[in-house]
Amino acid sequence: MRIGVLGTGTVGRTIAAKLRELGHDVLVGSRSAGADAVPFPDAAKHGALVFNCTAGAASLEALGAAGEENLTGKVLVDVTLPLDFSQGSPPGLFVCNDDSLGEQIQRAFPETKVVKTLNTVNASVMVDPIPGTNLFVCGNEEEAKAQVGELLQGFGWPADAIIDLGDISNARGTEMYLPLWIRLMGALGTARFNIAVVQ
Amino acid sequence: MRIGVLGTGTVGRTIAAKLRELGHDVLVGSRSAGADAVPFPDAAKHGALVFNCTAGAASLEALGAAGEENLTGKVLVDVTLPLDFSQGSPPGLFVCNDDSLGEQIQRAFPETKVVKTLNTVNASVMVDPIPGTNLFVCGNEEEAKAQVGELLQGFGWPADAIIDLGDISNARGTEMYLPLWIRLMGALGTARFNIAVVQ
Repeated sequence: MRIGVLGTGTVGRTIAAKLRELGHDVLVGSRSAGADAVPFPDAAKHGALVFNCTAGAASLEALGAAGEENLTGKVLVDVTLPLDFSQGSPPGLFVCNDDSLGEQIQRAFPETKVVKTLNTVNASVMVDPIPGTNLFVCGNEEEAKAQVGELLQGFGWPADAIIDLGDISNARGTEMYLPLWIRLMGALGTARFNIAVVQ
Repeated sequence: MRIGVLGTGTVGRTIAAKLRELGHDVLVGSRSAGADAVPFPDAAKHGALVFNCTAGAASLEALGAAGEENLTGKVLVDVTLPLDFSQGSPPGLFVCNDDSLGEQIQRAFPETKVVKTLNTVNASVMVDPIPGTNLFVCGNEEEAKAQVGELLQGFGWPADAIIDLGDISNARGTEMYLPLWIRLMGALGTARFNIAVVQ
């Protein structure tokens, strides 16, 4: 399918490469178009589905630049984290607890179907899952989550590894896992890990 | 050893029962002493090590009632969560992101060795771990964490299942995992689960 990927950082490039490998027609968008990226609006307009891989702190502005009209009625896969480096490292979150970046984006683009996922693992794990571990999705639209679930299965996530947490307010849960993720990365000495939910 | 357990909720009762089963000399403390509990100061004074199993919102007050002199120089195993039900359910946290309840307690009782642990699982899992899953500890004193690690092994946690995240500021990570834990409980329909960190 035609897919727009907003953001040219490691996450955006990794996801775009995987989508192309899977045969999708991908345009990557950035603030300033370059050798392998088009302007945000062109990438968003191109996509029947759009990935938001921009930096959390710049996401609302980037999506605004992409153009609400280019996102209306579409599924937006929101991979962002509301990282706040203003107090140094490890970073905090610039929104949490009673709100989330996923919800802020859904409120700002009410006609877009925001699905939050992939934000609990690093770029390499996103497209090369660690066997036996889990991924979380949330969003207000069941059909949108089902469509994203199929894409995730293409990335290598088994259907039964994907846990649907409910509506987009549950992005609070997955975004607030970040402070634990960062500390686990420090304790383990690698970012290539994930969690398995075990009963 | 002589152990004080502050709090007579499910967590306090479960931990006290397990500690007694393991042969420890346990006194359980509560605000209003009852049939099987003594006042907070008596339980704290009794313990060479003390578990804080009081409600998060009442913890600083309960520890103050227990008496700083009864906690000085001792290991305090902090099992609490800063649950905030003021906005209804699911609860938020009354402290997070740039501080944590574990840090608040350590600051309020600087001569006490606060070790945060067990706060990522429910009471039943605390003393009956799910095989293959992990537990996290943090605190400023290495010896205190080692002592708590031995107790946790008595509870059934294998030494290599216990991940040391560093000093007490890392309580931000484990306390902020709560919003995801709550949503997983909802999605799974049970509180008897835990996460395994997989590389």
